[in-house]
Amino acid sequence: MTIAQRKPADALVQEMQALGRSARAAAATLALAPTEQKNRALLQAAAALRAAAPDILAANARDLRAAEAKGLSGAMTDRLMLDSKRIEAIAAGVLEVAKLPDPVGAVDSEWTRPNGLRISRVRVPLGVIGIIYESRPNVTADAGALCLKSGNACILRGGSESFHSTRAIHAALVEGLAAAGLPAAAISLVPTTDRDAVGILLGMSEFVDIIVPRGGKSLIERVQRDSRIPMIAHLEGNCHVYVNRAADVAKARAVVVNAKMRRTGVCGAAETLLVDAAAAASHLKPILDDLIAAGCEIRGDAPTQALDPRVKPATELDFHTEFLDAIIAVKQVADVDEAIAHIGAYGSHHTDAILTEDAATAERFLARVDSAIVLHNASTQFADGGEFGMGAEIGISTGRLPPRGPVGVAELTSYKYVVHGNGQVRP
Amino acid sequence: MTIAQRKPADALVQEMQALGRSARAAAATLALAPTEQKNRALLQAAAALRAAAPDILAANARDLRAAEAKGLSGAMTDRLMLDSKRIEAIAAGVLEVAKLPDPVGAVDSEWTRPNGLRISRVRVPLGVIGIIYESRPNVTADAGALCLKSGNACILRGGSESFHSTRAIHAALVEGLAAAGLPAAAISLVPTTDRDAVGILLGMSEFVDIIVPRGGKSLIERVQRDSRIPMIAHLEGNCHVYVNRAADVAKARAVVVNAKMRRTGVCGAAETLLVDAAAAASHLKPILDDLIAAGCEIRGDAPTQALDPRVKPATELDFHTEFLDAIIAVKQVADVDEAIAHIGAYGSHHTDAILTEDAATAERFLARVDSAIVLHNASTQFADGGEFGMGAEIGISTGRLPPRGPVGVAELTSYKYVVHGNGQVRP
Repeated sequence: MTIAQRKPADALVQEMQALGRSARAAAATLALAPTEQKNRALLQAAAALRAAAPDILAANARDLRAAEAKGLSGAMTDRLMLDSKRIEAIAAGVLEVAKLPDPVGAVDSEWTRPNGLRISRVRVPLGVIGIIYESRPNVTADAGALCLKSGNACILRGGSESFHSTRAIHAALVEGLAAAGLPAAAISLVPTTDRDAVGILLGMSEFVDIIVPRGGKSLIERVQRDSRIPMIAHLEGNCHVYVNRAADVAKARAVVVNAKMRRTGVCGAAETLLVDAAAAASHLKPILDDLIAAGCEIRGDAPTQALDPRVKPATELDFHTEFLDAIIAVKQVADVDEAIAHIGAYGSHHTDAILTEDAATAERFLARVDSAIVLHNASTQFADGGEFGMGAEIGISTGRLPPRGPVGVAELTSYKYVVHGNGQVRP
Repeated sequence: MTIAQRKPADALVQEMQALGRSARAAAATLALAPTEQKNRALLQAAAALRAAAPDILAANARDLRAAEAKGLSGAMTDRLMLDSKRIEAIAAGVLEVAKLPDPVGAVDSEWTRPNGLRISRVRVPLGVIGIIYESRPNVTADAGALCLKSGNACILRGGSESFHSTRAIHAALVEGLAAAGLPAAAISLVPTTDRDAVGILLGMSEFVDIIVPRGGKSLIERVQRDSRIPMIAHLEGNCHVYVNRAADVAKARAVVVNAKMRRTGVCGAAETLLVDAAAAASHLKPILDDLIAAGCEIRGDAPTQALDPRVKPATELDFHTEFLDAIIAVKQVADVDEAIAHIGAYGSHHTDAILTEDAATAERFLARVDSAIVLHNASTQFADGGEFGMGAEIGISTGRLPPRGPVGVAELTSYKYVVHGNGQVRP
């Protein structure tokens, strides 16, 4: 069957177009909404989430039964599962977003030209944000709250396994909007699990200004291939820690174990360890002991295998892999330049760290590694909007264009130039 | 012939890939080049352009002869034509770019977290910029200089009619790079007029970070359709001037005539005039007299036709048209809100102005018109990087995402987060 033959039902197209049109109209209202009104909607949404906890749990139970029938994996079921504690955390997250400063209307810079024109660059919302995400019900509230605070309307499309949970959470968000006198379409939800809806959403460049694809490489590749709409994409976090010969051993041990093992499933978790060959005995050996003691599998190059019999052989593929698990690839390098070159060839431009007490070597690494986040003497697990002080984030962008790195409310805005004159004409 | 049958020669693909690979390598060098070295390259390039004036003129004569043989229009031939004065202006433009502040390494903001991590957001180049442009030889130098100053490598693809002129100008730029010890590939030129080269360039997402399509809607649509590479696009400038009933008549007359007639072929030229119906006799009538005296054709709605017999009827299409000529569409509106709604429906998010002495009405317009540039009591012809004080620009972006509006050297950068710690681990 070719693409051309496979046509979504006209009814679905019309439904999606109507969703887009009303989100676009809501975006115009939201762009002008005062901070106080947006915050009121968030406070009311948090209250509605708490009040609706029984309904949300009932909806979630329905999703969980379906997941069980489908034989979903334990990890996926865990991401899908809600309990009262998780619902309370979702409500608390919405309240946190209410406390963040409003980025809309902030003035990046202003200046006066010799002819008297006063020019200012003012932050404005992006418009309508389409968010496609995995079956994690909490993302519905997080993403909805972040978009609302940044003055953007959003169209949410959650994973089909979380459909009922997502709908119940969405209903609470809409209650918050209504209580604050904001349009319900400000946080729109695709009202069907029909997979064709995603394709239609990706084609609605008239109504959607930006797509945020969450949930893996294949989705991002699909957006790149099928959509004209710009995207904020989080590709993957193949993060490196490089231990230079001038590193402090105690710091290096603590940071490497934290970067790998604190939580292995987060995008800022270290996946490859690079160590100066000259520091193999002094630094790498104790680090390997610590990692292995913490339950980590080591896949090393030949010199690292020679260093410790518990090290398994690393393949070329291992150095390209985001394990998201208690596994680390280890390679010995000649110096900082070989480490930089390795990261350039294998990294994903997410987050990379150097450990050294030598300032010049650190600066060389920080300047030359082309990643959204580069760290000196700190764990890669700090790659997080909250840890950066931005509050919640919608993801970490691995693209080269802004927004790059953690995307919080400020990064969900664009800008316009506002020019005040008194009758100036151009000579 | 279908797309699938039409396959570019392998040799061309390989040539373009080699071009991309060397531009990528040059970008890494350029990203770290000190300001002084980049400026030296620009000064030497300007000197080389002046010294090579005879060669450039000879190459241009070759292009002009071919254009004549092809029967190119007068306007296109004029854009293509070089003389000593134009070459001097090109060299002077390169020197102006040398004087601009270097945006690379500038710190947007820095802060310290409670755990002692020092975070800074530092400007970095975008990487490799692909620029596809019309047959205007001067763009070769302008674009090359802007990319160089902002630390970006570029791959230039000029119009085929200007092939020899572009090559001669490019040779002078490469002389400048060589004299400063920078790689020649920092400013790369597609060495063929083969139209397939554009398609290959658009597919090289591995080597090209951003595409700047200049030269019309169809090219931009092609990039949107065929390329995964993000773009900075200048769609069109359907710019509006709205004269509110509270406008000062003298200011309104001067600004409208300037906005329309100073230069009719620039993107900031006004294309539609909106006037409060209540101000038709007091404001619109004298403005029409001025415009007609200046040689402008008026295409008005029915009330405007009734106001002056010289007004021709405006069609619906006229209000969608970027005339780039001495023609203006005129519509009377009830109030500022109808003006805002009209601009929302017909505008191109480029540049729009309001004339009024009423501050509240002005603020309403400036906040609600969703364009890259909004002006109060000033001509739309100020939509220009130079007039904004940014120095030269590569275009005016009409997209909603940054960079929006004039794109100068600062807008050709992205950022990274640099984090300094002393052994911090995440709890």
